[in-house]
Amino acid sequence: MMKILTPEEIADILRQKDNIQIFMHRSPDGDTIGCAYALCMALQRLGKNARAVCSDEIHKKYSYITDKVKKQDFTPGFFISVDIASTQLLGEQYKDYYDKIDLLIDHHGSNTGFAKCGCVDSTSAACTEIVAEVIRKMGVSIDRDIANAIFTGICTDTGCFKYSNVTAKTHIDAADMISCGADCAYICRLMFDTKSKSRIDIERMALESLEFYEDNKIALICITKQMIDASGADESDTEGIAALPRQVEGALIGITIREKENGEFKISARSAGDINVSKMCSLFGGGGHIAAAGCSIHGTADYAKEQIVSAAVATLKEYPEEQ
Amino acid sequence: MMKILTPEEIADILRQKDNIQIFMHRSPDGDTIGCAYALCMALQRLGKNARAVCSDEIHKKYSYITDKVKKQDFTPGFFISVDIASTQLLGEQYKDYYDKIDLLIDHHGSNTGFAKCGCVDSTSAACTEIVAEVIRKMGVSIDRDIANAIFTGICTDTGCFKYSNVTAKTHIDAADMISCGADCAYICRLMFDTKSKSRIDIERMALESLEFYEDNKIALICITKQMIDASGADESDTEGIAALPRQVEGALIGITIREKENGEFKISARSAGDINVSKMCSLFGGGGHIAAAGCSIHGTADYAKEQIVSAAVATLKEYPEEQ
Repeated sequence: MMKILTPEEIADILRQKDNIQIFMHRSPDGDTIGCAYALCMALQRLGKNARAVCSDEIHKKYSYITDKVKKQDFTPGFFISVDIASTQLLGEQYKDYYDKIDLLIDHHGSNTGFAKCGCVDSTSAACTEIVAEVIRKMGVSIDRDIANAIFTGICTDTGCFKYSNVTAKTHIDAADMISCGADCAYICRLMFDTKSKSRIDIERMALESLEFYEDNKIALICITKQMIDASGADESDTEGIAALPRQVEGALIGITIREKENGEFKISARSAGDINVSKMCSLFGGGGHIAAAGCSIHGTADYAKEQIVSAAVATLKEYPEEQ
Repeated sequence: MMKILTPEEIADILRQKDNIQIFMHRSPDGDTIGCAYALCMALQRLGKNARAVCSDEIHKKYSYITDKVKKQDFTPGFFISVDIASTQLLGEQYKDYYDKIDLLIDHHGSNTGFAKCGCVDSTSAACTEIVAEVIRKMGVSIDRDIANAIFTGICTDTGCFKYSNVTAKTHIDAADMISCGADCAYICRLMFDTKSKSRIDIERMALESLEFYEDNKIALICITKQMIDASGADESDTEGIAALPRQVEGALIGITIREKENGEFKISARSAGDINVSKMCSLFGGGGHIAAAGCSIHGTADYAKEQIVSAAVATLKEYPEEQ
């Protein structure tokens, strides 16, 4: 059983520790990066050795955060995970650490409590909000670099303040970071208004593939390997593309089909209102949240499309009041 | 000379007035709509007659705001303008009122002071933030409907908290509105994540037209009348499309050419950093802000493109340090 701590108690522990290694989750996003680097900077400000590590490479667009941490050579003796709900998210590369995490800080309600002690606050839209509180309780004043890292977590995990996880506190925490010097316009432009040419290409092709079913209530895009190859898009270029079909006015279920290797098609489903696409995806062995879920279907693109569309049609029928 | 008032003084005046008509600016956006309807609701809560008027039709997506105001039949005797920098923005239809505005509330530094009295606070990202203060000083508590109207102004005038006009206060005001019941996720989804099929089509065609110059530092899209016709796009469908070319990674100047009637091509230019596209547009009789400006060029599409691209190439040369 993990010992539950308050941010203040975490701060007390951290003040006593040194040689600290902070783990981000694999496929690192703005929140896990913001957490790890903000905490690392704060610990370094207290004269400690600290580093942030990740099993996957961090995209270069985050260099305004990652460049601000001093590279220190030390043998770590205390292990923290940030924004990580379960050990496998540490990544294969770190599987020796799965049972060695001393402290975790997280905001996923589904956190498995794999560390010796930690704090999980699922009311925080971003995990960096909890880290900000820990840093304050450590007695470190939040400077511009730390504020940029914290703000990045807040804006990326809320889709730039758009998602339903946003509360008054989210905006108050963002305001705090701006008061501490966070360059919010720069960060938001970099995170939300900058697209690679490959991203532009894959987005255009995705829009060309738009299909509608059930009087436009189901919108579907299909991204084939051929499109990925033609655009030169990598993983980061297709980030968030699953949100596109649901954005079409009138669409209640948005489906994105992505061709993987060996006849595997990854399905992402998004919904409006109370329509449960997690249940729909569970028909194919997948799952997720009510409004955002996924699964995989093996076969041809046409087969995958036919299967998921008929499941979506059946799902829609369960929600006559949404239509 | 317009008498300058504080929000508190405005509240004092409004408490004494009745039969109030509030003008929005032509081509109404979320901020002017949010201001007019929030104020109208607050005045009606005090038992007064009030209405909000606009020379152009209000898009139906704002019905969650406009539906909340009681329609009252009265002869107006006091005239207010909100979010309006100069009288012609009242629209031709209301030109009899150009010299009859009793009170204005605005946040444009360029406000011409055309009313008898008013408040202009150019530090407010949205004009609704000033209106919120006036409403509070009027002694009206901000309920869910008023909060939704105020929040709409804040999020739309900041591009969902992305623009450089955002300050800590912007987020604090947004937090206040959420505490008062504003349905921020619903509003943001409606304003930023809902696209008509025509918008999807015109966006796809715009992306297909992308051209690059000067080693990708200049990105250009050209929207012809034929594209507009093929997509069925109206004015609201092309809103914000001028932001697209500048979003391409590496683009320092983004140019959007839109074909109008009789060989007129409307140019919108957007820039990164300090590059002054207003100066560039002034070469063709246009102007605007440093990072967002416009002009018109007459001739063929190719001529317009050639003219504006050579001006952009010359402009880039003035900023070697940005490259």
